[in-house]
Amino acid sequence: MLLGSIEAGGTKFVCAVGNEDYRVLDQIQFPTTDPETTIQQAITYFQKFPELTALSVASFGPIELQKNNQYYGYITDTPKANWSHVDLIGPLKQALQLPIYFTTDVNGSAYGEYVTSQLFNEKINSLVYYTVGTGVGGGAVINGQILQGIGHPEMGHTFVKRHPADLDFAGICPFHNDCLEGLVSGPTFEARLGVKGQDVSHDHQVWDIMAYYLAQAAIQQTMILRPDNIVFGGGVISEDFLTKVRAQFNQLLGGYVQVPALDQYLTMPRVKNNGSATLGNFALAYRVQSE
Amino acid sequence: MLLGSIEAGGTKFVCAVGNEDYRVLDQIQFPTTDPETTIQQAITYFQKFPELTALSVASFGPIELQKNNQYYGYITDTPKANWSHVDLIGPLKQALQLPIYFTTDVNGSAYGEYVTSQLFNEKINSLVYYTVGTGVGGGAVINGQILQGIGHPEMGHTFVKRHPADLDFAGICPFHNDCLEGLVSGPTFEARLGVKGQDVSHDHQVWDIMAYYLAQAAIQQTMILRPDNIVFGGGVISEDFLTKVRAQFNQLLGGYVQVPALDQYLTMPRVKNNGSATLGNFALAYRVQSE
Repeated sequence: MLLGSIEAGGTKFVCAVGNEDYRVLDQIQFPTTDPETTIQQAITYFQKFPELTALSVASFGPIELQKNNQYYGYITDTPKANWSHVDLIGPLKQALQLPIYFTTDVNGSAYGEYVTSQLFNEKINSLVYYTVGTGVGGGAVINGQILQGIGHPEMGHTFVKRHPADLDFAGICPFHNDCLEGLVSGPTFEARLGVKGQDVSHDHQVWDIMAYYLAQAAIQQTMILRPDNIVFGGGVISEDFLTKVRAQFNQLLGGYVQVPALDQYLTMPRVKNNGSATLGNFALAYRVQSE
Repeated sequence: MLLGSIEAGGTKFVCAVGNEDYRVLDQIQFPTTDPETTIQQAITYFQKFPELTALSVASFGPIELQKNNQYYGYITDTPKANWSHVDLIGPLKQALQLPIYFTTDVNGSAYGEYVTSQLFNEKINSLVYYTVGTGVGGGAVINGQILQGIGHPEMGHTFVKRHPADLDFAGICPFHNDCLEGLVSGPTFEARLGVKGQDVSHDHQVWDIMAYYLAQAAIQQTMILRPDNIVFGGGVISEDFLTKVRAQFNQLLGGYVQVPALDQYLTMPRVKNNGSATLGNFALAYRVQSE
């Protein structure tokens, strides 16, 4: 069986074809330009695989996921130029005539991590996936189901207690200033220090400040969802940085509730090379074709 | 059919018997003294109803809800004197020989509100219930199921951005200082102002400060669970105070995601006179007897 994956990012689209073991058989990527060109490139790619059974699309957002909404399958009010109110799923469905699953990029990653945890025979019932990169987003799987309410989660836009050494930083979220995304996304390095994150030394205090905020994000999830695992992916995350997050989390938690050993609770992605969403897409495409 | 409810609070136990329409037919309450006496009072009460089909217990916590745990049915590490590591469900089950559902007080209330929303034919798929009283707690129902991870939620123990006029207040949570419970529970009035909440005038600034924090709790739920409704119960909550919470919420949200009209989104309980948990218990007892 051939399954298709689109990881539709604001910067690039990653299209892949895999089998029912969720192994990548073929993959391409191309920059996200205007919607018509970009969606047509994806269609042209998948048309090379006439045996494709189903497709899953994990997209940047916000997106409309309510099936009874007339704009189901659309990207809605995105700050990304030319991409607001764009029908992403409609043209794919019309051209490819396949069952298509549609979700957010971080839901795709969360599902990929969940599926991998099951393949590894870990005892995971629920899992949260945060990405910390250009923006901050999060998705969750609870008892095998992607968490979804009246819309998809926007976990990067909650507020946290400010670090005493960071009170002068206003934050950079255009909607909320100092929400999580406004305090820890990649572009905050330039806003705080005038240099890119990759040029900031590992012992700079900014890492402690950011760890303090991500630790509070982990506290929010711990107290609300009580998941088995919180995964941190995205360009800002490294094992070195996660060590700081774990230490701050431990201090903030104050032993109040039991959690798994921290190096198994607050983790890097299981799937290497940013492959969580593609693997999740294969699993979701498999699920949608069997429904 | 007769269904039983115990709302096991730290101050008092409320025991009730109802029918399958979830109507209260009989009810008593007595103070929570030592475990043996209190549990025996509940047993003696329900033994007057030999036709009882099932019972549900919504308890103060923390409690053990994992059925495969040897301490299932216990109250675990509670600060309440003499009640740590007490088997609550075991003695009830042995004496009454009934199917018993066990959950937290706030889960019971959340379920009662959810069931009532269904009876009222509201379009509610998921709902959060916060209590703001002696402590702060929260429970959630998602697609008809009580939210549960590796333990029950402890939604009162997340952190929030501090109000500029409240930076000197350390907070009163013995575990976390200035978590939500440490900032907005009932006893914070005396800690901040030296007087009880009922003696604080409605135009005192402390209400704006506390509204700012509860608005952030509502933002957390909005961004993580995207529920249809967030209910606030408990002694600190009034319609007047909720008006302030809604205004702060609206400002903090910044129009970022769509939510229902705020007077239908952030609400007082549907069930009057603190009856949410008892009604929820009847519905959960009904569910457990049919399983």
